[in-house]
Amino acid sequence: MRKFVSDKSCRKLLHRSFQNLTQQLQHHHHQHKGPPSSVSQSRFLSSSSMAPSPSSNPSAPSVTLDNINPKVLKCEYAVRGEIVTLAQRLQQELQVKPGSHPFDEILYCNIGNPQSLGQQPITFFREVLALCDHPSILDKSETQGLFSADAIERAWQILDQIPGRATGAYSHSQGIKGLRDTIAAGIEARDGFPADPNDIFLTDGASPAVHMMMQLLIRSEKDGILCPIPQYPLYSASIDLHGGTLVPYYLNEATGWGLEVSSLKKQLEAAKSQGITVRALVVINPGNPTGQVLGEENQREIVEFCRKEGLVLLADEVYQENVYVPEKTFHSFKKVSRSIGYGEADICLVSFQSVSKGFYGECGKRGGYMEITGFSPEVREQIYKVASVNLCSNISGQILASLVMSPPKVGDESYDSYCGEKEGILSSLARRAKTLEDALNNLEGVSCNKAEGAMYLFPRIELPQKAIKAAEAVNSAPDAFYCRCLLNETGIVVVPGSGFGQVPGTWHFRCTILPQEDKIPAVVSRLTDFHKRFMDEFRD
Amino acid sequence: MRKFVSDKSCRKLLHRSFQNLTQQLQHHHHQHKGPPSSVSQSRFLSSSSMAPSPSSNPSAPSVTLDNINPKVLKCEYAVRGEIVTLAQRLQQELQVKPGSHPFDEILYCNIGNPQSLGQQPITFFREVLALCDHPSILDKSETQGLFSADAIERAWQILDQIPGRATGAYSHSQGIKGLRDTIAAGIEARDGFPADPNDIFLTDGASPAVHMMMQLLIRSEKDGILCPIPQYPLYSASIDLHGGTLVPYYLNEATGWGLEVSSLKKQLEAAKSQGITVRALVVINPGNPTGQVLGEENQREIVEFCRKEGLVLLADEVYQENVYVPEKTFHSFKKVSRSIGYGEADICLVSFQSVSKGFYGECGKRGGYMEITGFSPEVREQIYKVASVNLCSNISGQILASLVMSPPKVGDESYDSYCGEKEGILSSLARRAKTLEDALNNLEGVSCNKAEGAMYLFPRIELPQKAIKAAEAVNSAPDAFYCRCLLNETGIVVVPGSGFGQVPGTWHFRCTILPQEDKIPAVVSRLTDFHKRFMDEFRD
Repeated sequence: MRKFVSDKSCRKLLHRSFQNLTQQLQHHHHQHKGPPSSVSQSRFLSSSSMAPSPSSNPSAPSVTLDNINPKVLKCEYAVRGEIVTLAQRLQQELQVKPGSHPFDEILYCNIGNPQSLGQQPITFFREVLALCDHPSILDKSETQGLFSADAIERAWQILDQIPGRATGAYSHSQGIKGLRDTIAAGIEARDGFPADPNDIFLTDGASPAVHMMMQLLIRSEKDGILCPIPQYPLYSASIDLHGGTLVPYYLNEATGWGLEVSSLKKQLEAAKSQGITVRALVVINPGNPTGQVLGEENQREIVEFCRKEGLVLLADEVYQENVYVPEKTFHSFKKVSRSIGYGEADICLVSFQSVSKGFYGECGKRGGYMEITGFSPEVREQIYKVASVNLCSNISGQILASLVMSPPKVGDESYDSYCGEKEGILSSLARRAKTLEDALNNLEGVSCNKAEGAMYLFPRIELPQKAIKAAEAVNSAPDAFYCRCLLNETGIVVVPGSGFGQVPGTWHFRCTILPQEDKIPAVVSRLTDFHKRFMDEFRD
Repeated sequence: MRKFVSDKSCRKLLHRSFQNLTQQLQHHHHQHKGPPSSVSQSRFLSSSSMAPSPSSNPSAPSVTLDNINPKVLKCEYAVRGEIVTLAQRLQQELQVKPGSHPFDEILYCNIGNPQSLGQQPITFFREVLALCDHPSILDKSETQGLFSADAIERAWQILDQIPGRATGAYSHSQGIKGLRDTIAAGIEARDGFPADPNDIFLTDGASPAVHMMMQLLIRSEKDGILCPIPQYPLYSASIDLHGGTLVPYYLNEATGWGLEVSSLKKQLEAAKSQGITVRALVVINPGNPTGQVLGEENQREIVEFCRKEGLVLLADEVYQENVYVPEKTFHSFKKVSRSIGYGEADICLVSFQSVSKGFYGECGKRGGYMEITGFSPEVREQIYKVASVNLCSNISGQILASLVMSPPKVGDESYDSYCGEKEGILSSLARRAKTLEDALNNLEGVSCNKAEGAMYLFPRIELPQKAIKAAEAVNSAPDAFYCRCLLNETGIVVVPGSGFGQVPGTWHFRCTILPQEDKIPAVVSRLTDFHKRFMDEFRD
């Protein structure tokens, strides 16, 4: 049997991302050096004012870690961090020299990327995309044999919504108007409350939309954004890149990763007392990495809190179709907020949606949107201006976002196959989530909350002191040490909890539920065997 | 005949973008308020350090123009600015009430968006995209009748380069390795010098790549970026959004928008004397909005200048296929730099390419890449990290970028039709450029440099004092006044020179050469008639 402490790769582990986040969470004071830069200051250097100086020509600076933007240096994104880099190296080694590791393939459970693990795309969606990419076949007789009738019809409808039927043209910077109409209608059907196509901004996946809002709201490190801990590291990365302050609130693991408004209040007040202006609250529902689904009453409290405190509610709702337990239902924050009578004047609300998640999992298409409500026309104009600098999001992603919000309906030729594909994927995801959750809870020292939604489990591991010491000895965080050993022994890639944030002194990892169902037994047995050996090695 | 001064729309003109840019160009000193924020300062607020304070709960700030990020407020993007908004309104009015304006359609000459004006996509490219979107038809017999054999073969090749053939999966954050291999081979074939696939970062069009480099290089307003004036306003917008200083260098209109290294030197020294650290030089070749193609000797001087001064050369080469005059050829800056013997250790070079331009004009697909050379492994790792935060660019755009750099070859089934489509578009663009250039030069008080490349003309207009006074009377910049009158009278949309920058006291506009060839005579006659009437109205 392999000895973990003799594993060179484990020894070498130095998971910087962990260290940074931990240092940040444990950093006990917040320095302010100088005021934020002035609004009125022009940064456009005047030509006419510049008299050439006869100064010497010192050796010019090249680009080094010392002279790049420190915000870039600071930002971390653990989901594609060093463990993934190691996994890619192991994969190459397996290709070059099969049998060189005690497993024959790498199982990427680090990222919500369903199709990379074999999930098939929804046929109807792909038919429409292909037809919109190459509309000149729409009229051909062979096309009838290759594509469903409703896909052909839908492609015509979409093309008719695009000026000149030009799918290769830049669109309106918010996205094609007709597609936004469709999406708004889909939101209305979901929520039972009106949605305005002018509130929709189509984006290349949800990430650019999150960046846009951070860019709008953050002026300096004195602006704070309330974020859950654990959180999806896009948020910490985006806040770092825009120079703001992440104000953490802990989700309560003991109550199934419950979101407690008392904790929000406490953290908001604490931030204020340190001179931080909190601008927004991020809520991820269903939760990433935690998988919980918020109850409606809880959501109501959150909305009221944001209204009272004048916070923008940034609602990450990209897993809205991923709910696996009968006792929970997804409710959008907009629906909840309208249900209690809050309108445009009461709360600034942004809902992020993506084609990358749900049962479609079209990550590579980079489609998504944000729906913004409650912002003044002047502020909306600024958001539009920023969108216009990048011209528009990709049209295939725009089309897919409209399809996701307006799938085939009863009576359409594709309806039955669409429902079959959808239900097949969602029920399989639910089974996989339950199997993995049970397997994790059977491990010594591991406890895992119920996977109510999203695509992840976030189990807690009680690591023996001996393991913690072994990690220290190789200059590693204990959870990163565990994850690296797991990868080296089994080929399973998970992300250490430190990449998402966790209560200091507790250790977790995030594991997706996405390996195909026929691989789940192997994941469970490899993980179980590994964990037993790890504990045998390190048990105190 | 309509009187311009009685035109209410013209009267109301207030082109803010112009005013800002002019103020910026004429701003005679550069203020610094406080040092840039410290590197070591943690912006992740510690939870454990935050004792709730019993402070009152003041009315929380909502989101207003006064409390959003001033960098957002400051940035401008004239290509989609207020004249375009007016054009969209006129278009709606024409739809609702045909005949309500003295023209029956809006002609968008404001933006390089060829397919929006009727240019057809390259068939082979769209065939491959459609097949990659819906690979399950690849095996079907009907597919042979609908698609060319080499498109089917290429789709298979591309799918085989994608792990699991999953076009719906996130890819490597730099883009699919096999596609980067293809692109690197295309660059090698173009330049005659090696290219490394690991130097390629695929992006959603070229704009995100430009933002990434600005984000990397700009630390504060004390970091400067040398940019041509006139420039493509993406650069000024990106520098503003990242809080840097645009250091302008004027292209010399008298020598066909020549780039003079003496001017670079002068501006660099002047910037240094004001405490600005210049990090990079932006060169757009072929030029936007100016249409000039740099000579090789000129490029050599530029490369030597960057090497000597330690500047990153940011080479916007998205119009590399758009050269219309036999006496000029496109040379990449990488080729020029390697030709004079400069290697990785000598110069940091970034080349931007896009699928939106060239003869393909696939703006809506949002494909592009940057090739980065000369950066240390540590800095490259930082660039990779920033790319990874956004996961990856859209896969269709990635595929298209590979196709653009590796089109059909002699002997392929599509080769003849591909060449026919390509030559048809490029020769038509050349004819349109010449016709418009001649027409502009025939106008009283207008002079227009030769359209050597890109997709634009940037004529200079000598406006009569009476017109300038009329513009002032409606609180408008003279060039914006002219463009707005042109739009109101003819439906032709062009962008005032002030959106790109121009020598103070001179007036220009940017006009694309993209209206379809059968519309060019109408553009010429409408423009000519308008200009005559305008001059008759305002001649001093």
